[in-house]
Amino acid sequence: MMGQDHLPIGVFDSGIGGLTVLRVIHQALPAESTIYLGDTARVPYGTKSPEVVTRYALNNARFLVERGIKLLVVACNTASAVVLPALEEELDVPVVGVIRPGARKAAETTRSGVVGVIGTEGTIMSGSYERALLEIRPGTRVHKRPCPLFVPLAEEGWENHPVSLTVAQEYLHDFASGGMDTLILGCTHYPVLIPAIEKAVGAKVALVDSATSVAEAVAQKLGRLDLTCPGDGPPVREFFVTDVPQRFQAVGERFLGARIFGIKQVDIDPHKPPNQAVYC
Amino acid sequence: MMGQDHLPIGVFDSGIGGLTVLRVIHQALPAESTIYLGDTARVPYGTKSPEVVTRYALNNARFLVERGIKLLVVACNTASAVVLPALEEELDVPVVGVIRPGARKAAETTRSGVVGVIGTEGTIMSGSYERALLEIRPGTRVHKRPCPLFVPLAEEGWENHPVSLTVAQEYLHDFASGGMDTLILGCTHYPVLIPAIEKAVGAKVALVDSATSVAEAVAQKLGRLDLTCPGDGPPVREFFVTDVPQRFQAVGERFLGARIFGIKQVDIDPHKPPNQAVYC
Repeated sequence: MMGQDHLPIGVFDSGIGGLTVLRVIHQALPAESTIYLGDTARVPYGTKSPEVVTRYALNNARFLVERGIKLLVVACNTASAVVLPALEEELDVPVVGVIRPGARKAAETTRSGVVGVIGTEGTIMSGSYERALLEIRPGTRVHKRPCPLFVPLAEEGWENHPVSLTVAQEYLHDFASGGMDTLILGCTHYPVLIPAIEKAVGAKVALVDSATSVAEAVAQKLGRLDLTCPGDGPPVREFFVTDVPQRFQAVGERFLGARIFGIKQVDIDPHKPPNQAVYC
Repeated sequence: MMGQDHLPIGVFDSGIGGLTVLRVIHQALPAESTIYLGDTARVPYGTKSPEVVTRYALNNARFLVERGIKLLVVACNTASAVVLPALEEELDVPVVGVIRPGARKAAETTRSGVVGVIGTEGTIMSGSYERALLEIRPGTRVHKRPCPLFVPLAEEGWENHPVSLTVAQEYLHDFASGGMDTLILGCTHYPVLIPAIEKAVGAKVALVDSATSVAEAVAQKLGRLDLTCPGDGPPVREFFVTDVPQRFQAVGERFLGARIFGIKQVDIDPHKPPNQAVYC
């Protein structure tokens, strides 16, 4: 029988955005199997309350844990921002969110000590990046701003459209003032809009994409827990969604940068026992 | 005991957009009591599949019917587009959607016989406006186009922002060619963006907002069924949401054009019996 180290890494997100995180995990840890769950029937989380996001996130996490995973990655910034302590308390597997790895990278990057954070309303309102930054690098000054139109612009595929630059300038034109030299892209969709964001804040501001730091945090945690997969067989990559797979596949392949096969639709209703998940 | 004519009209929407429909109902039928349900924990419906939208809509409808209503208005275009036959079959109260009233008004308005329809992906993919138009006015030529960024722009409050005009032009610049003289605003959020849409399609194109026609359809149906409220007491106006009320109140008052009081959060989980709805 194969050991725990052969179990997959579970990754969930409110929808397709987390595929930018999964992409980096696949690149950094090619031997690891993964199970991805996109909660496409209830997306987005970014405009919903902490209570509702907590309910959905616990629900997603239980589904993945029931399937057997060795580590859980919360790829959604909004869910990471509001529900990580509850997940850590509730689950028996180690949990990695995107907030602390992103904050750590920003803290290492900044010279001026002034860091910007952009994200969904839920992420920004939670103050999570700010708390993490102040803990990792006391005295950091944090500028923050929700950018609600970035997600629909990225999903529309308008990353090179002039509208995206205008919107980025509207949100961020006053952001690079005050000595900010580092900007955290606090939402998994935002890396798609890097060209527009870069133009809006200027080339001197370093953009921090949490995804890259998450892969490092996962590798470290697996190593410390002796759970790194030895890579003695081909990795398995499974994809689950809560709505029909078509749209997830079409937009998702752009986010993952690879073909996606065999997406399964699943009913993860919170009021059923998690092992009653029904495959459609 | 008061008769059925004193029962409220039930109105549901995926979130706040349906308040533009409720606003017109309040104006046209000031004596009628109303119960509004905004499914803010699962909003939006426009990018979700017909299966998921059907599940949510049935769920919302049952909640309102259990509370006692004399007529149900499906204020959400996407839900009206995909689930109206199922609701009519399932429920014992008359149901009014927004598709047929909107299509009827457009059919009465057009001279050229070329009608445009814009809406969410779900509404446009369903082909419902097209079918209704062809049934009401055979031979009508229908141009259609989803406009996914209009909802986030309206919610961001950017109705007078240059970005809204640029986006409208991008979506609609080739739309007014080919003799189109009437455009159906097939989403409850779109009336907020009328200035930009008008500029993009030109002043010669008549814009049809389904909301006004819905109020007429409701008035007619109540009259025919002898359910019009005699107006012998003050109307009751109740508001329910499935996520916390704060955001609904802030954005919603702009859509309703009036203050909103006493919003209640409600758990309408589909797997509980509907009369077990829990007030938070």
